Amino acid sequence: MFSVGIDIGGMSIKVGLVDDCGKIIAQSRFRTEKTPDDMIKCMAEHISNLIDDNSLDVKDMLGIGIGCPGSVNGDTGMVEILPNLDGWIKIPIVAKLQNFFDVPIKISNDANVAALAEVLYGVAKDYDNAIMFTLGTGVGGGIILDKKLVEGGHSLGAELGHITLVLEGEECTCGRKGCIERYVSATALIEQTKCAMLADKNSAMWDFVNGDIDKVDGRTAFESAKKGDLTAKKVCDKYLFYLGESILNMLNIFRPDVFILGGGISAQGKYLTDRLQDYCEKFEYGYKMSPRTEIVTATLGNDAGIIGAAALLKQ
Amino acid sequence: MFSVGIDIGGMSIKVGLVDDCGKIIAQSRFRTEKTPDDMIKCMAEHISNLIDDNSLDVKDMLGIGIGCPGSVNGDTGMVEILPNLDGWIKIPIVAKLQNFFDVPIKISNDANVAALAEVLYGVAKDYDNAIMFTLGTGVGGGIILDKKLVEGGHSLGAELGHITLVLEGEECTCGRKGCIERYVSATALIEQTKCAMLADKNSAMWDFVNGDIDKVDGRTAFESAKKGDLTAKKVCDKYLFYLGESILNMLNIFRPDVFILGGGISAQGKYLTDRLQDYCEKFEYGYKMSPRTEIVTATLGNDAGIIGAAALLKQ
Repeated sequence: MFSVGIDIGGMSIKVGLVDDCGKIIAQSRFRTEKTPDDMIKCMAEHISNLIDDNSLDVKDMLGIGIGCPGSVNGDTGMVEILPNLDGWIKIPIVAKLQNFFDVPIKISNDANVAALAEVLYGVAKDYDNAIMFTLGTGVGGGIILDKKLVEGGHSLGAELGHITLVLEGEECTCGRKGCIERYVSATALIEQTKCAMLADKNSAMWDFVNGDIDKVDGRTAFESAKKGDLTAKKVCDKYLFYLGESILNMLNIFRPDVFILGGGISAQGKYLTDRLQDYCEKFEYGYKMSPRTEIVTATLGNDAGIIGAAALLKQ
Repeated sequence: MFSVGIDIGGMSIKVGLVDDCGKIIAQSRFRTEKTPDDMIKCMAEHISNLIDDNSLDVKDMLGIGIGCPGSVNGDTGMVEILPNLDGWIKIPIVAKLQNFFDVPIKISNDANVAALAEVLYGVAKDYDNAIMFTLGTGVGGGIILDKKLVEGGHSLGAELGHITLVLEGEECTCGRKGCIERYVSATALIEQTKCAMLADKNSAMWDFVNGDIDKVDGRTAFESAKKGDLTAKKVCDKYLFYLGESILNMLNIFRPDVFILGGGISAQGKYLTDRLQDYCEKFEYGYKMSPRTEIVTATLGNDAGIIGAAALLKQ
């Protein structure tokens, strides 16, 4: 038996066959430059081809899970909107794909799916309760309690990036102000880094990007701070403060066993997690009687999308 | 068959027998001026007396549920700390009460228990998913998903009052700064009201309290605003903004069917909920595609503690 995991991204769509142990048997991908209907047709073709190429039988397919970068309604099987993909508004993706395969098909948000993968097969596989932030262009959130995905009503919740961190703070794409996403996403870190560089022309961060501010990325401040640059260190300190406060909020709501950081910034590993661990233990609610929440970085990387999508069938 | 609900408060402990429909059959109470051991003994005596007085049989008792005003560990049956009651630190309340009655005994935080009561038998009984704020001295939180209480790991989560609303804001008793509790509790509203009155000696709020600022309570600003006092209206507007932002955060995490406001301030009814409903619909995440969350006030009042505690047995 195997499941299919589909990982819809902004640039490409990945299709994978996943075995019962969460291992990817085979995968392929195609670009997103198509209409939604054509993309769905393409998903079906890729599934069929992968099954044929690997000498598998479609009768052994448990079902299809899809991780989508946007708002999806798990109850209706409807994509509400994928902001970074043209035409993906109110698309009944489950019904449309069911025209090709009469199997159970489940959809969820991409961040939920990544969290599910990490808890079932990745860094958090020894834990039951986990919260995950995916620190990328935005901030995605995933909530796992008792090894089950908690998506909120109609599977439309878990928008953990859209909680205010700074009341009346910076404007967010969601229409509110001061959302977590505006302070702890990779995009936000890059803005904070650039701002600090413009204020300090002598910072070693300029050397890191060969004098070209357009080359600043999520590593610039961290790598320069490790080499002792004080301005970079200040950027990191502030960023870690924002992230620490955001994590603490989640700990006080969910008291998870483990808090997972995913996305590019998580490559900073223990440089990130050691300091966040200290910060969170210092301020956690409950008069120091709360059990410790382990703060870790994701381990499945880009495979989490396919693996987690396929794991939706097990929910 | 019946269950026992125990509602531990700062001043008194209420014990009630509750039928299968969530109706209180009988209740009694005693004051908290005792050691924890004596209080637990007293709980047992009250249970036995209520059973005898109502000609019931202890064999028909399904179990005992206890709502506690503080941190409790549902896994271990241990009260971690009840900050407003002397001596209640690390008390194995379940084990101790089990010496008197060999029945299932469950404990939870009082705000969780109130939310459970409202969803099973009160204002939210037609809904599956609900979040509740209890606006009192502090802010308690309750999370109900699919009619089940979500307490977080070790039943120590759902501290919804201890999420930052204002980064680096006012100091909170929990050790952090800017928690929701410091802006939307009754205590906070009273502070905000007093502060506005001191800045405007002509405000009608002074008449409402007969010139005695110590008589300010959670109604002062609301009642004066309804009569047209502009300073009171500003206090209410700001308070509703804080509360609206706090609620929006919960909607984006849980997308509940209903959001319940409990505690004294909820007596403001539709004056409170109509404006919060408008505010939340304006800023809710998801490009206006999110299903509406009904904002309502609690209906079970003081009975919620006993009813919800007894309902823990049904979880």
